Amino acid sequence: MGFDARVGDILTHLDQGLDAALARLSDFLRIPSISTDPAHAGDVRRAAEWLAADLGALGFDVQIHDTPGHPMVTARSQPGDARPLLFYGHYDVQPVDPLELWNRPPFDPAIEDTPQGRVIRARGASDDKGQLMTFVEAFRAWKAVHGSLPSDLILLFEGEEESGSPSLRPFLKAHAGDLRADLAIICDTSRHADGRPAITTQLRGLVGQEVVVHAADRDLHSGSFGGLAANPIMILAQALAALKDDTGRVTLPGFYDGVGDLSPELARDWQALNFDAGDFLGRVGLSDPIGERGRTALEMVWNQPTAEINGIAGGYAGDGFKTVLPAVARAKVSFRLTGTQDPAAVRQAFQDHVRRFVPADCRIDFHDHGASPASVMDIADPAFGTAKQTLTQEWGQEAAFIGAGGSIPIAGDFKELLGMDSMLIGFARDDDRIHSPNEKYDVESFAKGARSWARILAALR
Amino acid sequence: MGFDARVGDILTHLDQGLDAALARLSDFLRIPSISTDPAHAGDVRRAAEWLAADLGALGFDVQIHDTPGHPMVTARSQPGDARPLLFYGHYDVQPVDPLELWNRPPFDPAIEDTPQGRVIRARGASDDKGQLMTFVEAFRAWKAVHGSLPSDLILLFEGEEESGSPSLRPFLKAHAGDLRADLAIICDTSRHADGRPAITTQLRGLVGQEVVVHAADRDLHSGSFGGLAANPIMILAQALAALKDDTGRVTLPGFYDGVGDLSPELARDWQALNFDAGDFLGRVGLSDPIGERGRTALEMVWNQPTAEINGIAGGYAGDGFKTVLPAVARAKVSFRLTGTQDPAAVRQAFQDHVRRFVPADCRIDFHDHGASPASVMDIADPAFGTAKQTLTQEWGQEAAFIGAGGSIPIAGDFKELLGMDSMLIGFARDDDRIHSPNEKYDVESFAKGARSWARILAALR
Repeated sequence: MGFDARVGDILTHLDQGLDAALARLSDFLRIPSISTDPAHAGDVRRAAEWLAADLGALGFDVQIHDTPGHPMVTARSQPGDARPLLFYGHYDVQPVDPLELWNRPPFDPAIEDTPQGRVIRARGASDDKGQLMTFVEAFRAWKAVHGSLPSDLILLFEGEEESGSPSLRPFLKAHAGDLRADLAIICDTSRHADGRPAITTQLRGLVGQEVVVHAADRDLHSGSFGGLAANPIMILAQALAALKDDTGRVTLPGFYDGVGDLSPELARDWQALNFDAGDFLGRVGLSDPIGERGRTALEMVWNQPTAEINGIAGGYAGDGFKTVLPAVARAKVSFRLTGTQDPAAVRQAFQDHVRRFVPADCRIDFHDHGASPASVMDIADPAFGTAKQTLTQEWGQEAAFIGAGGSIPIAGDFKELLGMDSMLIGFARDDDRIHSPNEKYDVESFAKGARSWARILAALR
Repeated sequence: MGFDARVGDILTHLDQGLDAALARLSDFLRIPSISTDPAHAGDVRRAAEWLAADLGALGFDVQIHDTPGHPMVTARSQPGDARPLLFYGHYDVQPVDPLELWNRPPFDPAIEDTPQGRVIRARGASDDKGQLMTFVEAFRAWKAVHGSLPSDLILLFEGEEESGSPSLRPFLKAHAGDLRADLAIICDTSRHADGRPAITTQLRGLVGQEVVVHAADRDLHSGSFGGLAANPIMILAQALAALKDDTGRVTLPGFYDGVGDLSPELARDWQALNFDAGDFLGRVGLSDPIGERGRTALEMVWNQPTAEINGIAGGYAGDGFKTVLPAVARAKVSFRLTGTQDPAAVRQAFQDHVRRFVPADCRIDFHDHGASPASVMDIADPAFGTAKQTLTQEWGQEAAFIGAGGSIPIAGDFKELLGMDSMLIGFARDDDRIHSPNEKYDVESFAKGARSWARILAALR
């Protein structure tokens, strides 16, 4: 590790090759690799082959692995004595509906000048082909300057990320020996809202639970039975309402076991982000944070666990009114987890809680929907400090360690199945319209993204 | 009032004429007067005309009144010095779907011998053509024995009861002068479960209220916003859960204003019914009454008000799981009212209650769905005692004053628009399958029903 004198040459090479790199990205974007649509299965494979050919030409040892779904592309550089790093991205893209809202054909990329700067517009430009290619362009420039690839790299590019990654975990298990590295580097996230580079160091986990309360064996008339027979909606409402106390804290016994306060270092970084909760909520028509009193807004979404009701249904909720006392009511509830909260313990505590509200003559069914712990990276790993410092140099803005309120399953999978942390660095912007019509990627994101990887590689190799 | 020596003759006449009366009822039942189906509008009119012709032949002064919907049939006997009584029934019937579940064509009535006794089976046999004809057969027998109809009777037969009675209130208002009597007698209810005759003397009222909680202006991702942004389902769950305390009492301030304890007389009658709540609930798969502690099960459904959630919806409740933090959640809530509870005050208290749970940056909409007070008849009116005594004689079982948990809107309309109480006496059975395939009316219900009216008329004329 340390400063590599030739990094300047690599950055110059990247700058001079930007138009060629954008042309390559455009070729890649022309392949409509929509993984959810079986009609595009051939295109998804074509994208895998395009990528494999490009990596092979660079000198990687490339393999296309068939799966029950779409192929996995893996590539390795020559072994050496450096710390093994695994780079992850995905080459599949979201569907393009509604097509009529696009200003140009989604698979006919173009460079556009906009008031916010130059962008490349196409489906997948930001999520994730453009980001993935920041890796590849950095490797290409390294090769051009050094004559050979950096050693000890493993690349893993997936074709099913937008369709739930059904083949990923089996693949990781089957190839664990080949894929295990010291650290995974994932390029599928965004810069902070103000444009500064960011390294996501913690992701909340998730427990999903469906609850179905059964009362009478049929819908009843609320005149004949109201006040006498159990109402499953009321039972559910009472159980769910009691999940939180007046201060916004979740009431489940033991729920906060493993939830830690923010370290001073992260607290400083998050404070420096000047996150404006009023502005953030104002964009969706709200204004007031609802989390536990005394917490900052970023703590609420990144470092505090939640209990949310994601859906509820029971009785008659259509037009007009029916005086029905329903047989069944159901809700979907999820918990976002932080620190070392145990998903199984949270699930159990929730089920025990709900059961206390259910009378003896009613029945409750639970359906489990996923359980993953939070991902909390070890930022004492020097790679994190190095990457942060390097990103600050490249972007001229202080890079930040940030959190994420949602889960990124791949990070949890790498931890669970391959035993390694992930360093999540991405250059996308909040306004990239990923998953929506007119997706774009800033040319700045692409160019400085590749330069960022060149610097990070130089510092870590 | 008092015993009429000729009542014996009338009863004999009814017994001897039973087959002819069943034949007339069968003619009436052959007319498919389904009021909800526009294709049957002509049939509904035909049923009105059939009825008018029969009443006219008996000597009533009959009118068929056109309305924006189906016709009203009114009939009057000659004026005299007796207490004016209004008799109400309806000649329209429910649809017959699903037709394949009927054991015979629904409009081809037949007398059947069943293990439970003889029945007449057809759509409308019990609800309400058979019950309506118990009036008419009693009048017919009276006329045969006395040579003339009882004086001071007003009959009102409706053709829209099964389609929500849209023309009824305007009609009552427009003809209030002609229709006002001292007491309404309604034959559209059932005997008690054990077969004993019953007079319904109180009906719960109803307030219906839809509540819509709006939070963000779009559905949010629960990862990005969970723990920070308001969740409308949680707001609704907390507001609804707080409607009841641990003892089952409704918590709205002033809610119990006007709710009275049962009179000793009614308490005695209800006790004598030997109502088995476990058995009643057992038939729908439940076992435990949920009402306010210390109340009997019949008090819970007949004399105590309720707060029920009739429907709820919000977020994603379909298959699988979506980690959505929804923009909107809605519920339909109803209150059954007793005593002199004021529907407007209950609605207001509920709205005030819900508003307290809604944060400043969220919005709540209310949609009103009907408001009617409880109907509590003045059983000190001697007609009630007389009817009870007379029914006891006819059926050989102690007749009971009972309550009803649901509303019967016509009773409230008579009270509000014509200023008169209603005496609700019907002879149907719980197993008559009204509104369902294979509707039937016990021949005993029909025969003893007509005899009951003959006795009551004799006692009141």
